[in-house]
Amino acid sequence: MPLPVPPERVEIQLGERSYQILIGSELLGDPRSFAAAPSAASALIVTNTTVAPLYAATLRAALAGRYREVHVLELPDGEAHKDWQTLNLVFDALLARGADRKTVLFALGGGVVGDMTGFAAASYMRGVPFVQVPTTLLAQVDSSVGGKTAINHPHGKNLIGAFYQPELVVADVDTLDTLPQRELVAGLAEVIKYGAVADDAFLGWIESNLVALLAREKTALSHAVTTSCRIKAEVVANDEREAGRRAILNFGHTFAHAIETGTGHGTWLHGEAVGCGMAMAADLSARLGLVGRVQAERVARIVGAAGLPLRAPRLGLERYLELMRMDKKAQGGQMRFVLLEGPGQAGLGAVDPAQVTDTIENFCA
Amino acid sequence: MPLPVPPERVEIQLGERSYQILIGSELLGDPRSFAAAPSAASALIVTNTTVAPLYAATLRAALAGRYREVHVLELPDGEAHKDWQTLNLVFDALLARGADRKTVLFALGGGVVGDMTGFAAASYMRGVPFVQVPTTLLAQVDSSVGGKTAINHPHGKNLIGAFYQPELVVADVDTLDTLPQRELVAGLAEVIKYGAVADDAFLGWIESNLVALLAREKTALSHAVTTSCRIKAEVVANDEREAGRRAILNFGHTFAHAIETGTGHGTWLHGEAVGCGMAMAADLSARLGLVGRVQAERVARIVGAAGLPLRAPRLGLERYLELMRMDKKAQGGQMRFVLLEGPGQAGLGAVDPAQVTDTIENFCA
Repeated sequence: MPLPVPPERVEIQLGERSYQILIGSELLGDPRSFAAAPSAASALIVTNTTVAPLYAATLRAALAGRYREVHVLELPDGEAHKDWQTLNLVFDALLARGADRKTVLFALGGGVVGDMTGFAAASYMRGVPFVQVPTTLLAQVDSSVGGKTAINHPHGKNLIGAFYQPELVVADVDTLDTLPQRELVAGLAEVIKYGAVADDAFLGWIESNLVALLAREKTALSHAVTTSCRIKAEVVANDEREAGRRAILNFGHTFAHAIETGTGHGTWLHGEAVGCGMAMAADLSARLGLVGRVQAERVARIVGAAGLPLRAPRLGLERYLELMRMDKKAQGGQMRFVLLEGPGQAGLGAVDPAQVTDTIENFCA
Repeated sequence: MPLPVPPERVEIQLGERSYQILIGSELLGDPRSFAAAPSAASALIVTNTTVAPLYAATLRAALAGRYREVHVLELPDGEAHKDWQTLNLVFDALLARGADRKTVLFALGGGVVGDMTGFAAASYMRGVPFVQVPTTLLAQVDSSVGGKTAINHPHGKNLIGAFYQPELVVADVDTLDTLPQRELVAGLAEVIKYGAVADDAFLGWIESNLVALLAREKTALSHAVTTSCRIKAEVVANDEREAGRRAILNFGHTFAHAIETGTGHGTWLHGEAVGCGMAMAADLSARLGLVGRVQAERVARIVGAAGLPLRAPRLGLERYLELMRMDKKAQGGQMRFVLLEGPGQAGLGAVDPAQVTDTIENFCA
């Protein structure tokens, strides 16, 4: 038996809300992976009907020595269920188990499970501890880190939520073995994002290693997840509540949210919408003269090479503008976009609707 | 025209989340009262159908010079509406008005309006600023201060919520003129609480000034609100998230929550349940030998003299125990009560169900 490779560790520095991300193989079933999780009488693993048969028993066994009671709650799978009704299933399960203020929630699954479990943890009795155990690439590189929790509202994604940090994140890249290829590709969108907005050398590494990543080579995946988390950790540590710099992590997301809401949540995967949205935001940046056409096309090329869509759905110009005005970054009616400002550099800028029109029409052609 | 009396100011010291409470007469209609409220393009006054006709126009006029748009949302009145459905009316109003992350919410009303508006502010786009403008004695001395926000769950009060601080609290004692006598009396329960758990001299002052308070003398009310807020400010500043000492502010509340849930929310006013609950908790403290019988009876005497109930509803012993085990302070199945430990002193203690039985039976006799 080969010696296990020690996991990578990334620290999120947030004072008394600091925590670690463990990244590696063979973590899920190892009780040592959860040594930093808070002690309590009971724990509740929140997962979904797809992930539960694959990994719930393994996680439960790893936690059995630490919590007197470990319960498992399976939510329906999918973005369409990221709503108040499903959130209430978590509250109901906690109340039915007599959960108290120390009960620890474990979010085992992708971004939807993590966002909902996090918001349930933030709100139940005004806050109980929780641990993220992301099983999708998207969740491992993005949604499980940084404390953004939320549910959707019929009028928009993630409109109801909280900034609420987990106590620990355990990202086992072995769980990516069972991820459908479409979701692996969607997760790569966020990996590309980190390179585009914060680390041009990493963007180059991604371009050179796309084949290995798409083939799920563990070393490549571990490096991609670790570097993504390092970049996110640095950004979040300096701007936990997204008052400033953290907004750059929303590169491509204004367009993406419009695509997702406009087509109905669940039609496009979030990462697919982000991929297309990044190409659109890069195009907008070039049209505004912030970067050259070559840089915008490089982003689009990598997005396309990863297998992400480069054509936006035809929602109609007015509908796009309406949806983007509801974006959380909008202020006083003006739209705000994350724009490229150079290789591995981005910033937030206010943009008039007229300036966005050409980009939308170009990508919907 | 007499010179206006300058308002009392109490500062809640919470680092970057610090804020002021203004207490006095003629504050509601004065734009200067809201000088510390955040700037923004728009504001939403959340109130209810009872308070709106009395005070919404006055507050709106006071804010008109500061916000380009000031909207008013009237929620249905009463504890029975402190639920997700009503909370959603706030989200719907914010979305319909195109509210962004800077929009300021003003909670104009009692504890229900304040708790719901606060939780809406905590959750909308993961947090927008809000200002408390409490118009009941209960809200002025307790629920508007300290950042506890929540809605009820069918299984218990305030089970879903957040710790989320307002930017400012403006408590105009003139608004107490229109308060029904039953609600004024209910508010006195929390005033008595501060004396009982933290300031024996204040408890003596309350006993001596009950007649003036019940007659709504402004000077007496201002002193009662200011002293209550000072005590709460000191406790909250040292324990924002109720990890320790803040729990003493829940004196009487374990019994009170059982009474309220057991009789159906809205049958007893919260303050009435707290009044009876304090007499019960004092009785329990004496039975456990923590204080003498004389001190327990003094608390009960003041509760009774204020016009608060001293008989608990006959829910049955088992039902009481079941309801109290669901209390947020419970841990690992054991009930925890705030108990008197001396004049103006209290602490949190774990109690076996058997020890609570005599108290319940005595008060339900």
